[in-house]
Amino acid sequence: MKRILTGDTPTGRLHLGHFVGTLENRVKLQNEYEVFIILADTHALTTLSEVPEKIKEYTKEVLLDNLSIGLDPKKVTFFKESDVAEIYELASIFSMYVSHNRALRNPTIKDEIASKGLGDLFSLGFINYPIYQAADILCVKAELVPVGKDQEAHLEQTREIARVINKFAKSELFPEPKALIGRVGKLVGTDGNPKMGKSLNNTIYLSDSKEEVEKKVMGMYTDPKRIHANDPGTVDGNPVFVYLDTFASEADLKKVEDFKTRYQKGEVGDVEVKKFLVEVLNSLLEPIRKKRLEFKAQDLDAILKEGAEKTRRIAGETLNQVKESLSLV
Amino acid sequence: MKRILTGDTPTGRLHLGHFVGTLENRVKLQNEYEVFIILADTHALTTLSEVPEKIKEYTKEVLLDNLSIGLDPKKVTFFKESDVAEIYELASIFSMYVSHNRALRNPTIKDEIASKGLGDLFSLGFINYPIYQAADILCVKAELVPVGKDQEAHLEQTREIARVINKFAKSELFPEPKALIGRVGKLVGTDGNPKMGKSLNNTIYLSDSKEEVEKKVMGMYTDPKRIHANDPGTVDGNPVFVYLDTFASEADLKKVEDFKTRYQKGEVGDVEVKKFLVEVLNSLLEPIRKKRLEFKAQDLDAILKEGAEKTRRIAGETLNQVKESLSLV
Repeated sequence: MKRILTGDTPTGRLHLGHFVGTLENRVKLQNEYEVFIILADTHALTTLSEVPEKIKEYTKEVLLDNLSIGLDPKKVTFFKESDVAEIYELASIFSMYVSHNRALRNPTIKDEIASKGLGDLFSLGFINYPIYQAADILCVKAELVPVGKDQEAHLEQTREIARVINKFAKSELFPEPKALIGRVGKLVGTDGNPKMGKSLNNTIYLSDSKEEVEKKVMGMYTDPKRIHANDPGTVDGNPVFVYLDTFASEADLKKVEDFKTRYQKGEVGDVEVKKFLVEVLNSLLEPIRKKRLEFKAQDLDAILKEGAEKTRRIAGETLNQVKESLSLV
Repeated sequence: MKRILTGDTPTGRLHLGHFVGTLENRVKLQNEYEVFIILADTHALTTLSEVPEKIKEYTKEVLLDNLSIGLDPKKVTFFKESDVAEIYELASIFSMYVSHNRALRNPTIKDEIASKGLGDLFSLGFINYPIYQAADILCVKAELVPVGKDQEAHLEQTREIARVINKFAKSELFPEPKALIGRVGKLVGTDGNPKMGKSLNNTIYLSDSKEEVEKKVMGMYTDPKRIHANDPGTVDGNPVFVYLDTFASEADLKKVEDFKTRYQKGEVGDVEVKKFLVEVLNSLLEPIRKKRLEFKAQDLDAILKEGAEKTRRIAGETLNQVKESLSLV
């Protein structure tokens, strides 16, 4: 069975943007692939180095997010990065084959530096993180990586590293992993910002309660030019309609079309559309909330421990093969 | 007993420059400190990434170099970096607390880039290596590090990291390790270059044979202005006399002074002084050669295995303490 490696950096709970970016693909593919989900806790230090105590809590929340969307821990291997020491050694070897310039040219790194306003104030760990990601992926020789669009640059870096090591190994030691981009590359935030992101405070979390969802949706940004319910409104790019298009079930599609027509004619108010969106989102999220509660009562540490043991066995073999290829052992 | 951590990157055999820079201090201190000697094989990839197969051979040679100068494997712990996985994880955590700018400002890194003519063609691993060195040192909580002068900048970086982690630990988890600089900070090469270095082809190795030493010394750079044996010669900075000052035994000091006086007056030829230097060096190196032969017959892998096990136990505890301090576990 071919392998998938994907995962999350536990810097906060997962939201609807993650859901359409990568999470739903994980669920779909768990029967066709051997799926590994990494909780990249060390990686989380790139943003939480001053408040590292938050990482443990987020790690648990993110595990619950993954479980609650329908990933079966009997099929899927969950592990914490910090439980698989082999990843760090692999990354350190890989870093010898990536030029510093190449690392700085990474477009996603550049975007992050710009969007977070880091200027030249970022850590060495930050500039290294795509290499750790390559080690995460390659340690289990994953062939497919369901990721958001912004992670494509890191996959390209991962493939470059795979090729270098394969050259030394004189074999296909590593597959060249492919990205599987979600059906929505980037989900608009509740405030109209092109990207939903926790630091922007424009998210709807998978773990939000019914009431929180209602409150957030009712306060959503729509069409700023529309003052009265009988003004004709814009549907394109209007976050409320983007969410309806993205999250409405097939059964609701006709209703969504009807709302669009009426909205454009000025025949329906924002409040009515938003109330419908609340229903749509809550019917998506209700089963997720239920599963979350179920898993909260289970022994999550045991899931992570078992996952770490399995991953370490595989990663240990991979590390040995890499060292042998480089004649280091 | 306080600990020392020092060691070598196995990119070649050790030479007289290493001897006076750090090796003789290791021997002197092996009874007063608990000494750890790291063979930083992964680190060697910073320069040997295209010919990694050489590292294994050099690792063995460097271990023999260390043993042959009189380090007792019953007292001193020898280990390969790649046998202590905890170092890589520690380094990865540390790298989150070192700014990329700070890493680039490291004066030794700058010097290396300039002297090796790297321009901007260096690996990410190269820019990371002072952090790995910090992890090497701190994993056993060493308090003293016998090093060459060029390594002082890395010790400063190590102390900065120690302070950051101590702040989180709210305790003196790490000592702030001090450098112990050798009696000769930088030894001139046989060609008159201010630094003896294998890439400069101006070295006398600890493992050179009698004949090799003779050949190298007889071909040494001396005073270029002196054409005939009866021309007055310059002693200051003349590599032959630098070596005599550095390596002559106490019993020979009078003879050295006598040679200097005659050389300055034009009363002795280069050949005679060089022949004397051959004697001086060979009487230093002969016992080293003997010991090397003895150790060559021993089970070196067993020495490294035992050392790795001991170091891993200590490094594992340290890693756990660091993770606890950051609330990662």
